[in-house]
Amino acid sequence: MGAEVPEEPAAFAPFPCLSTLRIYDSRWCGLRRDLLRLHTGREQEHHVIEISDAVAVVPVLEDGRVALIGQYRYVHGKTHWEVPAGRVSPGESARDAAVRELREEAGLRAASWNPLPGFYPINGISPHFAHAFVAEGCSVAGEPEPEDSEQLVRRFFTRAEIEGLLDAGRFADAFTALCLAYWLRRTARPG
Amino acid sequence: MGAEVPEEPAAFAPFPCLSTLRIYDSRWCGLRRDLLRLHTGREQEHHVIEISDAVAVVPVLEDGRVALIGQYRYVHGKTHWEVPAGRVSPGESARDAAVRELREEAGLRAASWNPLPGFYPINGISPHFAHAFVAEGCSVAGEPEPEDSEQLVRRFFTRAEIEGLLDAGRFADAFTALCLAYWLRRTARPG
Repeated sequence: MGAEVPEEPAAFAPFPCLSTLRIYDSRWCGLRRDLLRLHTGREQEHHVIEISDAVAVVPVLEDGRVALIGQYRYVHGKTHWEVPAGRVSPGESARDAAVRELREEAGLRAASWNPLPGFYPINGISPHFAHAFVAEGCSVAGEPEPEDSEQLVRRFFTRAEIEGLLDAGRFADAFTALCLAYWLRRTARPG
Repeated sequence: MGAEVPEEPAAFAPFPCLSTLRIYDSRWCGLRRDLLRLHTGREQEHHVIEISDAVAVVPVLEDGRVALIGQYRYVHGKTHWEVPAGRVSPGESARDAAVRELREEAGLRAASWNPLPGFYPINGISPHFAHAFVAEGCSVAGEPEPEDSEQLVRRFFTRAEIEGLLDAGRFADAFTALCLAYWLRRTARPG
């Protein structure tokens, strides 16, 4: 394990935004087109998809197993295993959103919370950001309470099963794969 | 390491799409609103962001170092380390797009290519899919040839440096963090 952590690259000068065209607004997403002045002096349009922040949770039970939900996703039509995740509501903290999603989607409550690195899922086109957590010492608080638009089941997985699914490329949801990869690295290290 | 790979969850019945409202079309992204019939019988609108497929590449040199690019991203204003990545052009295969992005963004060519698991970066709202690869035996083909809208630098990192950056949460781009996490797991295993 290396303790060498390189510096960030030297920061490039930002592209100034000359004007903005609002294309669409809704509770779920917005879309705008910014006119930028590039470093070359040329002007170029840049689409920006606006999606509010998200949270993703790795729920770890007292016995070390991880809870995942089998979830149907309309956009690709498949049902697959995911970590509990969702949007941060207006006025809500990321941590509170994580507590809420863990209860609603997995029917669990946690004894303690630890942050994992957050991430930009599509930073070529959106500032959408996901806050990630490990929920430690989870216990069953009840049945999942999905929204009308959600269909899901809960299942508990051993660490070996999580590793098997990850290495087989079966976590097609990037939030799930990345959060579980981080969790596996953290819990593999001594101390 | 576990060889136990659990099954997918039982597939839920898809939500039929009753009608579609097209909101926006462009070369970079599209947006539509589908009216769905939920399993509860209720109708509900579902936004779908349309983004063409992407590729992401972990470029590994003959000496085992990994090439990353320091890239400015307009949407959050930061410059940070990323794997070479980009969109698949119309009519182009994912593999050809990966070869092209590796040359354009990192100035490298590879001796051989191996797939990593692909992923849906935001499958709550978009079928956007990323194809991931390891480019093995990379050698310098020239300088990076960024597009007008790109500012980037190339740097080579040791495996220990990659681990340090990943564990410190410094790969804020999800494509980068996930592809490198997969690569580290694959190369850590015996055989």
